[in-house]
This record gives sequence, structure tokens and C-alpha cells, in this order.
Amino acid sequence: MLVTGGAGFIGSNLCERLISEGHTVYCWDNMETGSVRNLSAIISSPRFELVRHDIIAPKDVAVDRIYNLACPASPVQYQKDPVHTIMTSTVGVMNMLDLAERYGATLLQASTSEIYGDPLVHPQREDYWGHVNPIGPRACYDESKRLAETLLVAHEGQRNAKVRIARIFNTYGPHMQPEDGRVVSNFIVRALRGEDIAIYGDGSQTRSFCYVDDMVDGLVRLMCSNLRGPVNLGNPVETTVRELADIINGMAGGRSRIAHRPLPPDDPCRRNPDITLARQRLGWEPRVQLDEGLRKTMKYFRDVVDE
Amino acid sequence: MLVTGGAGFIGSNLCERLISEGHTVYCWDNMETGSVRNLSAIISSPRFELVRHDIIAPKDVAVDRIYNLACPASPVQYQKDPVHTIMTSTVGVMNMLDLAERYGATLLQASTSEIYGDPLVHPQREDYWGHVNPIGPRACYDESKRLAETLLVAHEGQRNAKVRIARIFNTYGPHMQPEDGRVVSNFIVRALRGEDIAIYGDGSQTRSFCYVDDMVDGLVRLMCSNLRGPVNLGNPVETTVRELADIINGMAGGRSRIAHRPLPPDDPCRRNPDITLARQRLGWEPRVQLDEGLRKTMKYFRDVVDE
Repeated sequence: MLVTGGAGFIGSNLCERLISEGHTVYCWDNMETGSVRNLSAIISSPRFELVRHDIIAPKDVAVDRIYNLACPASPVQYQKDPVHTIMTSTVGVMNMLDLAERYGATLLQASTSEIYGDPLVHPQREDYWGHVNPIGPRACYDESKRLAETLLVAHEGQRNAKVRIARIFNTYGPHMQPEDGRVVSNFIVRALRGEDIAIYGDGSQTRSFCYVDDMVDGLVRLMCSNLRGPVNLGNPVETTVRELADIINGMAGGRSRIAHRPLPPDDPCRRNPDITLARQRLGWEPRVQLDEGLRKTMKYFRDVVDE
Repeated sequence: MLVTGGAGFIGSNLCERLISEGHTVYCWDNMETGSVRNLSAIISSPRFELVRHDIIAPKDVAVDRIYNLACPASPVQYQKDPVHTIMTSTVGVMNMLDLAERYGATLLQASTSEIYGDPLVHPQREDYWGHVNPIGPRACYDESKRLAETLLVAHEGQRNAKVRIARIFNTYGPHMQPEDGRVVSNFIVRALRGEDIAIYGDGSQTRSFCYVDDMVDGLVRLMCSNLRGPVNLGNPVETTVRELADIINGMAGGRSRIAHRPLPPDDPCRRNPDITLARQRLGWEPRVQLDEGLRKTMKYFRDVVDE
């Protein structure tokens, strides 16, 4: 199996799961947001190979399943080089489709709740078309991820490509980057250091947080299913950003203050998955409670932040 | 100057205008929907060169202005090979951006009212985000044209690329392909032959029709302006499809019957440009009345259909 972006947050958790099940895993990562540390549990396995490779260039390997998780996923990261972000989910996805078609492999594309943009409908079902600004500051990510879905569906229709599309909602857990701009990791790191926790706006905006083990399980089930998707994978339980800050601050000892900041442009105020399709077709739903997931995540960050 | 898609409908009219103004024009076209006949007025000019080239491959020429009009624009044509349609407005646009940046040229991208999809707001202003199905039958065109805008804006922000974005609404006139699925050409050809004119739904859906000379004038003004856009170019006067059928049938002698057909999926029921920005920043608005434009178009089609 091939996992691109396999040294990243979800990718490395997926690689651990696949290795634990006895698979041979090729991991390609350009190491821009991924890290070898995320792979410490499996890097010495004889069934695991890490190659520094950027998928915007073609490369060959004979595999039967490809999980394409290559793309920076947090706004701070994907806005550093918008042109490269676009290339990753257009040219990069074309390369993955070429590879999949060459070997008759199934390609699972990590799409995202960001394709819904700033949704006008809640919760979002897979047939909601989304509400995205094509020339806004998030467009390099949102629009190229939309186009990636379009590409997969076109290749399926024209060339019988075997494709799976997962729309991944907010996910958290071990191997998140500290301070990558995402709310769970930011809050935990700040709380552990006793620094101010910054909330944009009044904190009443909600997010749905899915623990990474649940997400990995959803991706594996989708790959093994006969469902093309797109299918939403995420936790439908909504939590306000303010609540999240309070829980995390409490777990860490309560030394942080909550500081309010203005909302950035095009910040989606709410996003919540309808996971009826995943429940019915994949028998999947999140099982890890927020408390439990946050405790595991905080345990991971204590080691990282102390390093 | 370089005009890609220069053997197509709008492209060939643009080439005629540029040649008539004394410019040297390189015309690249893969000749899939373009034709040499469209260039008959200028093909023998020493200042004109036609090269059969598909912009999804890189190619070099030293120019200071690039009009990128390469892409099939009618649903019948762009749905023939959806993967290639996507490549044209992603990889093709990347190649045009590379070329523009190499020579410090200004790149004008022919975007489209289709990026608004099936709009929920009328008329459409440039700051409307649109309503597009990322995996629908029109997605190969709509989503890749959206992504092209995203690409241009990203290249401007990151690399100071000189870019212009025109959102082209329904345009008609000489050099349209007969029976390419677009309403004006279809109706005229049917009316000239005395065949049934097919209307989808009850014909109450409106379209805004801009004569091609006006459109070409808008493109040239945008290229010479300091406006990046996106800017809407189109005729804000709305006509129902039923009215259009009646006018055309009348001009042709009234021998056709109007036949009703079911609406295809994802057919946009209404689209109408707000052209305030073009009026203010380009001093542009359509000048050719529908009657006059249709008469000129019908004159052109009489020759083509009789051929």
C-alpha cells in the first residue's frame, strides 16, 4: 500500500494502523509538514519504507491501494505557498490517478470539509454544493480540493478508475503539529505552557472534533468498501471553541487566560457533518469521546512540548 | 501577442480585431473545436501565425500579452472528454502563467459566468461566490475554471504575475459552431432549415446574450486596463429562451415549430451579469442590440449552413 503524506498527522496514524495489521506500507512525504518523529513507532519495521517525495512530480511504485493524504491541511501551512498547495491537489492528484490506473489500484483521496466553505446549510450532507470564495485567502486549498474530487469522478466515469473520496472534518490527536494554527493543538500547547489561549471572535463558533483513531478507521473502511463517495467522515457532536478552551485549560491545570481576537476573513463560523451515509454504508461512527481523546492528545503533547 | 484558442468562436473574432489594429498575433489552437474557416479573413496576413498546439503541453514564444481563450465552452463539447477539459484549465493555465512570468507578459484568462453555477442571487456581482456542484456533470468545466481564477490570483500574490480575469457571459455571433449545443447557434441553424426548435423546460429561463464584437472590445479594454478583475463581461439585458426562439424563427421565415424537452440535470435556470465594475473601470458596456446582432449572426450562418 502507498500512503502519501504518510509522515503527517493523519497519515502517520494511518501508517501505524496498516503496519499493525501486517501490511507493507510505502510512505511518500515531502516532509514539509510531516516529520520522522511521527513515524518513530514504525520506522524500523521491515515492512515500512519512507521516501522523501513530492507528489507534484511523477513517481512509480506497484501497489494495489493508494491513500492520498499529501497536502498541508491547516491554513497557516497551506497559505505559506498557495501555488504549491494548488499544485499538490491538482497535478499531484493527476499523478496519483495515473499511478492508480497503471496498476489497477484503488485511490482514496483525502478531501475535506473545507470544500463546503462557509456553509449556508447545517449539518452538511454530501449533496450540499458548498459556499466557497474562489479568489479568497482559503481558495488555494478549498478550490483545489474541490477540483481533486472533480478529477476523481471524471477519471472514474471516463477510465473506470477505482476511486474513493473521504470528506474529512476536523480531526485531532497524537502527531498533530504543535502551533500549526489548528485549534486543538494550539489550545493544548498554550494550556500546557500556561500562556494565553487566543479565541477568534466570541468563541461561540462551533467545531466538530473527531479523534484520529476514529478517522483512520473510517478511511480504512472506506477503502475496503464499494462506496465511491464523497462520504463525510467526522464527529457530528458540536463543541463551541470557548467550551473546548475551557476543557483543555482545565485538564492542563487551569493556568491560562482566555484572550479574544478579531475573526480572520472568510473564517467559517460553523461546520458539522451529517454522517448518515458513513453509518449506513460503512457501519462507521466516531467512538472516542472528546474527554478521552483530549486526554490522549494532551499526553502526547506533554512529551513533545517538553522536548 | 498570443491568443490561445484563437481559432475558436471568440478567439477568432479577437484575432481579427488585433490584426486589424496592426498587431502581430500568434494563434495557438488544438483545433478540437476551433476551425481554420474562422480565420479565413486573416490567415494570409503576414502578421498572423496559426500553430496547432494544445496548451496542456508547455511551449515557448516571446510575447507581451497573452489572451488565454483555450477551452471548449459549450457543455456538449466540454463533456466529451472531461479529464481533458480539466487539464486545459489547470495544467494549461499553469503553462500560460509560466510563459507570462518568463517574459513579463500580461495574461488575460477567459473565465466564465459558469463559475457562478446555478446562482442563488440575481444579478451576479463579482463578489458572489457562486453555487456549483463539485461532482456534477458540469463540474469538469465549472470547477476547473474556478481553479484557474484561484491560480491567477495566487500567482499574482506570490510572484507578481500580471493577470486579468474576465468572467464571460453568454456570447453569440459569427464563428459560433453550428449545433454545438448553445442556444443561439442551435436555434438559428434549426430555423434556417425549418426544423423543430427544441426548448428545455417551458422556455421561461432567461439568458443574457452579448454580441461578440462587444465581448472582444471588453477583453481588449480589460487587457489594456490596470484592473485585475475578476470582472463580469456580458449583456445585462435578459431574454427568455422562448422569446429568443420566436425572434430567430421570425427572422428566418417562421417555418419552425417550438418543441419542448425536459430540463437536463444542473441546468442553470437564470444568469445575468451585474456589469457595474466593467462600466466604471473599463468604460465598457454592450452596444449592439439583440436584433442587430442576431441579423449579423444569421447572415453568417446562412453561408455556413448552405456550404
